[in-house]
Amino acid sequence: MVAGFRHSTPGPSDQYNQLHEYELTAHRELKYTDGSSIDWLQEEAAERERSHALHSQAGVRGALLPALDSARMWIVVIATGIGIGLAGAWLDVLVKWLGDIREGRCAYGFFYNSVACCSGLDAGEFCVEWQTWSQYFHIKSMFASSFLQAFVYISLAVIFGGTSAFLILSGYVFDAFLSPWTLLIKALGLALAVASGLSLGKEGPLVHVACCMAYLFSRMFKQFRHNEASKRRVLAAAAAAGVSVAFGSPLGGVLFGLEELDAFASETDVMWQGFVASAIAAVALQWVNPFGTAKLVLFQVTALSDTWRAFELIPWISLGVIGGVLGSLIIRLNVEIAIYRRQSAVGEWPVLEVVFASGVTAALSYLVQTSELVANLFQECDPTKGDYHGLCNPNATKENIFLLVLTAFIKVVLTAWTFGMMVPAGIFLPTIGIGACLGRAVGLVMQSIYRSHPTAWFFQSCPPDPSVRCISPGFYAIIGAASMLGGVTRMTISLVVILFELTGALSHVLPIMISVMTAKWVGDALGKDGIYTVWIAMRRYPWLPPVHYRDQGETAAHVMRSVSDLVVIKDGVTTVRELLDTLRQHDYHGFPVIDKHGEYVGYTTRDSLQLAIGTCFCLFIKRHAARSSSSLAAERSLMFLLPPPGSSDEIHFTEGAYGLEDKICTFSKNYMLVSASNRIDMSSTLETTIIQLRKEVSQEMLVSMFKKWCNPRQIIFTHAGKLTGMVTKRDIVDLLTQHFPHAASLAREPPPT
Amino acid sequence: MVAGFRHSTPGPSDQYNQLHEYELTAHRELKYTDGSSIDWLQEEAAERERSHALHSQAGVRGALLPALDSARMWIVVIATGIGIGLAGAWLDVLVKWLGDIREGRCAYGFFYNSVACCSGLDAGEFCVEWQTWSQYFHIKSMFASSFLQAFVYISLAVIFGGTSAFLILSGYVFDAFLSPWTLLIKALGLALAVASGLSLGKEGPLVHVACCMAYLFSRMFKQFRHNEASKRRVLAAAAAAGVSVAFGSPLGGVLFGLEELDAFASETDVMWQGFVASAIAAVALQWVNPFGTAKLVLFQVTALSDTWRAFELIPWISLGVIGGVLGSLIIRLNVEIAIYRRQSAVGEWPVLEVVFASGVTAALSYLVQTSELVANLFQECDPTKGDYHGLCNPNATKENIFLLVLTAFIKVVLTAWTFGMMVPAGIFLPTIGIGACLGRAVGLVMQSIYRSHPTAWFFQSCPPDPSVRCISPGFYAIIGAASMLGGVTRMTISLVVILFELTGALSHVLPIMISVMTAKWVGDALGKDGIYTVWIAMRRYPWLPPVHYRDQGETAAHVMRSVSDLVVIKDGVTTVRELLDTLRQHDYHGFPVIDKHGEYVGYTTRDSLQLAIGTCFCLFIKRHAARSSSSLAAERSLMFLLPPPGSSDEIHFTEGAYGLEDKICTFSKNYMLVSASNRIDMSSTLETTIIQLRKEVSQEMLVSMFKKWCNPRQIIFTHAGKLTGMVTKRDIVDLLTQHFPHAASLAREPPPT
Repeated sequence: MVAGFRHSTPGPSDQYNQLHEYELTAHRELKYTDGSSIDWLQEEAAERERSHALHSQAGVRGALLPALDSARMWIVVIATGIGIGLAGAWLDVLVKWLGDIREGRCAYGFFYNSVACCSGLDAGEFCVEWQTWSQYFHIKSMFASSFLQAFVYISLAVIFGGTSAFLILSGYVFDAFLSPWTLLIKALGLALAVASGLSLGKEGPLVHVACCMAYLFSRMFKQFRHNEASKRRVLAAAAAAGVSVAFGSPLGGVLFGLEELDAFASETDVMWQGFVASAIAAVALQWVNPFGTAKLVLFQVTALSDTWRAFELIPWISLGVIGGVLGSLIIRLNVEIAIYRRQSAVGEWPVLEVVFASGVTAALSYLVQTSELVANLFQECDPTKGDYHGLCNPNATKENIFLLVLTAFIKVVLTAWTFGMMVPAGIFLPTIGIGACLGRAVGLVMQSIYRSHPTAWFFQSCPPDPSVRCISPGFYAIIGAASMLGGVTRMTISLVVILFELTGALSHVLPIMISVMTAKWVGDALGKDGIYTVWIAMRRYPWLPPVHYRDQGETAAHVMRSVSDLVVIKDGVTTVRELLDTLRQHDYHGFPVIDKHGEYVGYTTRDSLQLAIGTCFCLFIKRHAARSSSSLAAERSLMFLLPPPGSSDEIHFTEGAYGLEDKICTFSKNYMLVSASNRIDMSSTLETTIIQLRKEVSQEMLVSMFKKWCNPRQIIFTHAGKLTGMVTKRDIVDLLTQHFPHAASLAREPPPT
Repeated sequence: MVAGFRHSTPGPSDQYNQLHEYELTAHRELKYTDGSSIDWLQEEAAERERSHALHSQAGVRGALLPALDSARMWIVVIATGIGIGLAGAWLDVLVKWLGDIREGRCAYGFFYNSVACCSGLDAGEFCVEWQTWSQYFHIKSMFASSFLQAFVYISLAVIFGGTSAFLILSGYVFDAFLSPWTLLIKALGLALAVASGLSLGKEGPLVHVACCMAYLFSRMFKQFRHNEASKRRVLAAAAAAGVSVAFGSPLGGVLFGLEELDAFASETDVMWQGFVASAIAAVALQWVNPFGTAKLVLFQVTALSDTWRAFELIPWISLGVIGGVLGSLIIRLNVEIAIYRRQSAVGEWPVLEVVFASGVTAALSYLVQTSELVANLFQECDPTKGDYHGLCNPNATKENIFLLVLTAFIKVVLTAWTFGMMVPAGIFLPTIGIGACLGRAVGLVMQSIYRSHPTAWFFQSCPPDPSVRCISPGFYAIIGAASMLGGVTRMTISLVVILFELTGALSHVLPIMISVMTAKWVGDALGKDGIYTVWIAMRRYPWLPPVHYRDQGETAAHVMRSVSDLVVIKDGVTTVRELLDTLRQHDYHGFPVIDKHGEYVGYTTRDSLQLAIGTCFCLFIKRHAARSSSSLAAERSLMFLLPPPGSSDEIHFTEGAYGLEDKICTFSKNYMLVSASNRIDMSSTLETTIIQLRKEVSQEMLVSMFKKWCNPRQIIFTHAGKLTGMVTKRDIVDLLTQHFPHAASLAREPPPT
């Protein structure tokens, strides 16, 4: 006898059943194992069914429920936007204060930072309220004073860094329990990481906090709890808002999302949500206005000259080349350090490593005094406005160039070391710092050449009046930053938008574009992948990197798992016992189904199989609820685990193993009882959205299907009705990262053989 | 005997063959019939093959050819950007001059516009060089002067409009021959259309010209000529550049492309190309600087107050509601007029209609003097800066409100009439005009309420000092424009970005977002589609509108053409004769292939079938080249057209009908000769990238597959190996537009029954 798992297929007239179907779906607690990939096609289908169930409600409910559904999503998006904007402002205030107490304290209140402490002074008046630690302790001796300052500076950095690493590590343990308290602890850890002076950027922490917030807000509503598709949309919007706050650039946030998150590209709605979240976050940040400057952008570019000259393209393209080369170098160095960390004992002491790195970074930056340097690099020299860090002293050009190149070199090493440590870190800001140093240095070189040879043919296009500035070293710093970012991240459009919002001058967008493009080309020639892609490859995350794959004429047949290697369920042939066996022995996400002639019938997931078996089983229990539990157990074995003649303990079947939770037992339909030797009709458990292709399809096309277009979890290959093979997303990720020598070197599970 | 069409499958070691394969592909002149849809999957595959052939060249060629390939694409993108930027500037100058000579001429040169004519004057000095026509002709009589002015104003409008319609109509005839001359004629026609004063925007013409330019530039390189995929990328970039120039907003252009063109969403590269083209176009426009103001944006917003008050959300949300209602009204009116035009005799006299519309528009705008009104609506009143059109006169508030509402009403009617006439028209600018009038009116109402009750609780948040402005009517105009745009186009993010770039103030982005969102919601409730979607539905263009489709539980089975209705080729069964018959009788783009057991084998296109037959045929001719042409003809019929016993003239087979062009004969491979009664082995003609699904997939999912994800031309449905049906893109377009009562009412072919 062929027993059936019959879920009634929802039809428009059958609303009662649909609601039950929905309830069942809601109860479906999916447990994703670490590193498993999510089947978006399936999740989208689940979301669709849920939304359909809401829409097909009669009367007012049918109109109201979908509106409520949409309203809840907007509540989460808007709350996340406001939250991350306020958090960003709070982070700024906290970081500024933490950074300042490394040097001194305010005389009339410990919790004022140096700016707040010295506010209200007239121009030229000297601020006496802000005291360095040696002033505070009345230390007169020059040597003792220097020692105390350095000691406090470095030890606070070490304490901040260590605490941050400790908090983050604890946070990871509590990850499953994401309460507001945990979020606060985490956010504090992130602020400490930034304040420790480590060579890392706040955009990483901010994106992280934004996603935590969105997750937290979305937990309030049931609709997000069991659906990865809607959760992903909200998280994508949150990531955009995080970038928006980090750079004060709402459009930059949206375009970052477009370039790096494929969730954006697939739907205009998601982009719109991301934009709303970004804009609200930026407005919230501006409203708090942490430093009273009303400025949003990180580094204001001041006194930019209106025009640039064609000859400047030569140093700018050179900066692009430098960015490409140095970017590749940072990536390679970073990879080597990460692998060394993993293979040596360093990886076992993450907090110690952070503490050590904080100490080294603090010592170096105390010597070189880089802390406020970067922001000054983008300023143009203006005789009326004082001398930024001595950068504008025309007599110290050589020293300045040397200092800038040295700083860049130190930051290269520190950044390559820091990115990948057990603190949340963004790569954008340190990269901007390196690039700005080098760009400013090139600008100073150009300026000094111009000063010594103002009439050379090279500078013919400069204005004849030497008092008018011809070279703007501040803009060279922008170009340098753009080049380094291009070399390290290999992104294009969002870099240009973020830097364009820094300068604000449309005429300067062309040089920025050219240098980013040059850096990307040079970088791609030296090493194919950007730093994000490299880390995804090393961690073997199930995420398709945004690289352009080009095959050598291979087809899908070369990458697919052939039918002989697949675990296949035979519709109408496989028995319940064999099915349980299969589920126990293999932890695959799903199984192709063929009929008795070997024709491909469909694909079924582990989840729906378990649900089907579990439902049958629990109905059986209900029918026998009157009996004692011991006799129940006997019935159960009778039912499913009829011992085969000879090996009685072959199948170990414990309650809960196959999703047999009590709540499923509330489901009430007329199911047939099956015994373990029954054969199964799979027709109702088949997934509806499984894509089939011919194995002759080219690999490049296949990768496109997975990446840009369809985002399925697997694709089935058939020929003339026969199953020929299957490719999963994991196979494609491995294919895309196989050229990279260290692929999967940091993965938790070993790389595939 | 089973004869085969064996194209050798390209393998990495077989480079010579590949190049030939490529040559063959290049010769493949696809003829798309009007309204047919392009199979992007197939085109992408062709592009991939071509790119692969270039990459697999040995040595330097292998490195150089792909670089050249990419360089050519960038040349086209950059040239288009520069071209459209210059064309935009030229259009501005021309339109300004054409507009001015409707009122007068410059005393010292006919080709100066009023601004250039009066330049160089001191402040307050009166410009005597610019003479109205009555001044020029020394007409003193008040009545005669007014009559002359009105006569010249209206007749020039009529002449411009008529000439434009005539030029555009001629342009359509010359469409196949897109020479620089045609482009110039077309651009001139577009300038005349704008200058005629018709209620249309220049962004439509600019996008059109940009695409013409890109097409023209791409024709210079062979790589674009035969590949729709790369052509489409370049055209998408050009469209973005066109929008960028029209609104002076490079980011707005890119986001417009993202929202309306699916080419952008699928690939980051395309977005980057679009951004580069947009930025270059904007820089080129700024460089020409047609009016010496160095301003890029269309309407500068001046003297915007820094903050807005929460109570202002009430009028702003009301404006959003008005925008949604009025937007739907414009769409409905526009549709009714378009259908009347088609059904009545009006459609047969397109030039006359344009002439009449120009006359009416000119007469009305001469009376109401709207020409410079719109730009002034966004200005804030500033006592030191004169009175914009009397808008700032506090004693004439009632008159102003009446005038504004009247103007808006007239523009609503004119716009609904004009959009769809035989002139290229953009809907953005007239919509902005309507919205700005209404917004300013609401702003004036608010202002007058505030002036009469400054101490009401409603205005508590206003500054107590009455000399400080509390209500900014100029910003109300922006909100009104945003609302109307939201109601008419149902776009979101690009509207906000374009209007955000107008105001430049981040704090004002929230009200703009809220009003756009309100207008979209209200509009969607009144009528589901934006005006672009409606026109696509009416024209039955094979383009999937960006609407969210929601099924009622139907599956693909309800929309697919079932296997019994399909024309199917049987692999190994169908003979050459039957194949030729099929190709002659059905003009389908392709055919599913099944084997003799009815199992689905694959899908083949008309093109590859014709190519295969044609190649066989022409090889046959080559082998018999020595013979006379009459004997050739005999051989040919022998070869393919062996008359069936009984009906000798059943198959009419003329040269060229099946792609039998001479150049294909340069192809040299060893093909087997086939006779018409041979059966065919289809294996080499099958498409590799045909997606198969089960017919149980939901319609919503299916629409998603076509729309966002895969963009294929057709999807095949199978069950257990058997072909069950097929869905084409056309079916999905019809499905998406079926709810619209006037779908396909303007299509060239009749709607499906």
